[in-house]
Amino acid sequence: MASPRKLSAPSDYAELLYRYDTWLFDCDGVIWSGDHAIEGASRAINFLRDNGKRVVFVTNNAARSRKMLKTKFDRLRIAASEDEIVSSSSAAAVYLKEVLKFPADRKVFVMGMEGVEAELDVVNIKRCGGTCPEDNKFLAANDYSSLAGEEAIDPSVGAVVCGFDMHMNYAKLCKAFKYLTREGAQGPVLAGETGGGCHFILTNDDKVVPALGELWPGSGSLATPLIASTKRNPIVIGKPHAPMLDTVKSLYNIDQNRSIFVGDNLHTDILFARDGSIDSLLVLTGVTKEEDCQTEGIWPTFITQSISNIVAAETGQSSIAAMGVDGTSTIHASL
Amino acid sequence: MASPRKLSAPSDYAELLYRYDTWLFDCDGVIWSGDHAIEGASRAINFLRDNGKRVVFVTNNAARSRKMLKTKFDRLRIAASEDEIVSSSSAAAVYLKEVLKFPADRKVFVMGMEGVEAELDVVNIKRCGGTCPEDNKFLAANDYSSLAGEEAIDPSVGAVVCGFDMHMNYAKLCKAFKYLTREGAQGPVLAGETGGGCHFILTNDDKVVPALGELWPGSGSLATPLIASTKRNPIVIGKPHAPMLDTVKSLYNIDQNRSIFVGDNLHTDILFARDGSIDSLLVLTGVTKEEDCQTEGIWPTFITQSISNIVAAETGQSSIAAMGVDGTSTIHASL
Repeated sequence: MASPRKLSAPSDYAELLYRYDTWLFDCDGVIWSGDHAIEGASRAINFLRDNGKRVVFVTNNAARSRKMLKTKFDRLRIAASEDEIVSSSSAAAVYLKEVLKFPADRKVFVMGMEGVEAELDVVNIKRCGGTCPEDNKFLAANDYSSLAGEEAIDPSVGAVVCGFDMHMNYAKLCKAFKYLTREGAQGPVLAGETGGGCHFILTNDDKVVPALGELWPGSGSLATPLIASTKRNPIVIGKPHAPMLDTVKSLYNIDQNRSIFVGDNLHTDILFARDGSIDSLLVLTGVTKEEDCQTEGIWPTFITQSISNIVAAETGQSSIAAMGVDGTSTIHASL
Repeated sequence: MASPRKLSAPSDYAELLYRYDTWLFDCDGVIWSGDHAIEGASRAINFLRDNGKRVVFVTNNAARSRKMLKTKFDRLRIAASEDEIVSSSSAAAVYLKEVLKFPADRKVFVMGMEGVEAELDVVNIKRCGGTCPEDNKFLAANDYSSLAGEEAIDPSVGAVVCGFDMHMNYAKLCKAFKYLTREGAQGPVLAGETGGGCHFILTNDDKVVPALGELWPGSGSLATPLIASTKRNPIVIGKPHAPMLDTVKSLYNIDQNRSIFVGDNLHTDILFARDGSIDSLLVLTGVTKEEDCQTEGIWPTFITQSISNIVAAETGQSSIAAMGVDGTSTIHASL
């Protein structure tokens, strides 16, 4: 594919503003870094809105609900509404409801935290496991018996949803294993039935997760005991996997040809955009250096240092107005 | 390789008795099944001892120490001394001490239970993690801070040992991740040093484990989050891997040509024997049916229904006495 074009002149940014109506954003490394806003990100987001653009935030974060994420936007003074946020936990809930048509009388067993639970509640899917007290206590030494037999599990469960879980434990793992391996578990999940079919959903496959300035084991690592023991592969919702885009499409009526994905991670954000046939803009305020594109062989459509640069479009608009409909000629192909 | 020979006539068993001085036994599925002794197993073991044979029990069980396993032998009335038992937890401890020459002033971080801890104590290796109360409490919601920074881990740790752990939790996982990924972690583990080198040991790679008549996720599954997040591969001690045989050899002065391994599992026991160039006897009282050898393409040297059959050697001894030194001719090649 073509090399990415590095944006530099105001007219470059003006052209992007002209080309794309929907701006999809990753969060960490793009608009914030840990607990600090990226300089100029708030202004850039407001600038896009002022120019009539739709803004959507697409994050693999599964530990927090959109309501909790909204609190973070507020704290960092970046304007966003809950409706503009798609997390891998909200996407998992929507995917179950809209794509898999999860029956109203079946339950989800959660291997995750409040974020996954809150999003299942939003779409009225029943749940167990997760933060429920009976699944979050230490078993007494050798108290294996509480995990044995059919009576240890809920017959109405029709899906196991795994996300980031600070409270993962053997009892939850053992129950999830039973749901995923019981007779008929690989079959359809039907309304009015108990036992049998059980979907296996993973919010995101990130093997490590940034936490307090360090990297810790992430959702993609925490699900591996279930994958290894059940020999089943989960449906992975989060970027770069297709279910996240299916969900974004089911929520917003977007025109892929007039949408752009802005991200800092080649393996999640840029691959996600490429595989979904959406143009992409790589920013260098997160985990990727410019030369990594060459090393990894993953190329965004455009590169810029920071999303804050987009406001340069304002001074570039006069030149773009003088151009034709395409306007590509003004983009500096400096890579 | 040659097809296995199915033992049937008393002279077949008499020949085995003649050929092998050391009898290595798997436990579950061979001498017991769950919490019941295999019929005739006790008599068979005593018969071998009465005929001057050395008997060694080699089990992948890592949750229990040899002292705890000895209690099980006693309860099932099968004669055994602690010195005759090698578990994957005792082998891990011996392997660290004898093969890896683990320094006396370094510590092991345990992702496991009392079995691993007791065996490390036997060989005087210091330890932390495991069942220590501070590593076995639930973190309060969002209490991530106790896991952050260098102060959350012990600088003297030089190995992470993973086994079966009913009390696995995110805090232990996170600490183990830090030990295995800190600067210099892949380097040597030296006496008098802190930080740096850290061995990664897995007692056994069994993805599921029999428990209360069911199968549950096993040690091999519980270690996968660390493998996925650290991108390191552990040294696997248990059958079918070589470190278990290295340990058995370092403990008993065995002649491989006059030793036989008796087991019920093709993928652990029979592969272990084959890869270690030791003859094997498959029993059908455990997880394997005779036709599985063909399906799996793994062939033992001999097959018999149950270890209890070995006592038939008594009546076969007169015929073997009349034979030459080899005696192979009497083995019925019925497969």
